[in-house]
Amino acid sequence: MKKDDNCIFCKIIEGKIPAAKVYEDEKVLAFLDIMPVNKGHVLIVPKSHSKNILEDDDKDIAACMKVVKKVSTAVIKAMKADGFNIGVNTERAAGQAIFHTHFHVIPRFQNDGLHHWPSGKYDGEEITKVKQLIIKKIE
Amino acid sequence: MKKDDNCIFCKIIEGKIPAAKVYEDEKVLAFLDIMPVNKGHVLIVPKSHSKNILEDDDKDIAACMKVVKKVSTAVIKAMKADGFNIGVNTERAAGQAIFHTHFHVIPRFQNDGLHHWPSGKYDGEEITKVKQLIIKKIE
Repeated sequence: MKKDDNCIFCKIIEGKIPAAKVYEDEKVLAFLDIMPVNKGHVLIVPKSHSKNILEDDDKDIAACMKVVKKVSTAVIKAMKADGFNIGVNTERAAGQAIFHTHFHVIPRFQNDGLHHWPSGKYDGEEITKVKQLIIKKIE
Repeated sequence: MKKDDNCIFCKIIEGKIPAAKVYEDEKVLAFLDIMPVNKGHVLIVPKSHSKNILEDDDKDIAACMKVVKKVSTAVIKAMKADGFNIGVNTERAAGQAIFHTHFHVIPRFQNDGLHHWPSGKYDGEEITKVKQLIIKKIE
């Protein structure tokens, strides 16, 4: 189990900082985000520290995803929500603020006023060029 | 392998509808979203049909998450991105439009103008009440 002594989520996992915990098992902790997008917004974190999902062990990610399903099902019932979003932000440009991997589960309600990002489009052959660029980098 | 004859993603998986595929293995397909939030936006789907992530087999989800890591690493390099978001929308109220589970990988760039949803807060004992409501519904 990796740990970073300067990480706020590691301190929550250790019990050194309080949190509104909703679920815990050997590998995973789930607690309420204190700055919720909607009430019932939960963060699910692997107990072993990594700065982001690309550095996490696949087993820890799989364990988190099981808890995401378990907790989101409970959040839907508890908050009488109509749906939910799962989100993982990686790096500051993507909105990551705490550098310990976390999965957001955000309950959603019909007409709750939250807008998704607008969609763009590809012109002509551009989509084929982008596809080729990505395929070249797959390892 | 489950299949829904009316599902557009099942048709892409079967090769009946074209797509800009960037990765494929036994359980998972990844292809470009034709309406990208940013160019290089990829959708990762389990080949076995389920309408949303709550109905997916845990092994299919784990297989998708491995591909999310592989593809997002390639997208970052190919698009020279500064980060990425993973998103899964469940039910129409959460923005789900295609009812076959899919993971969005959206490359992000410093100052790309995409804004995250605003945060709220809990008043007084409200966070404890919400915590208890959710804990009661955990199964």
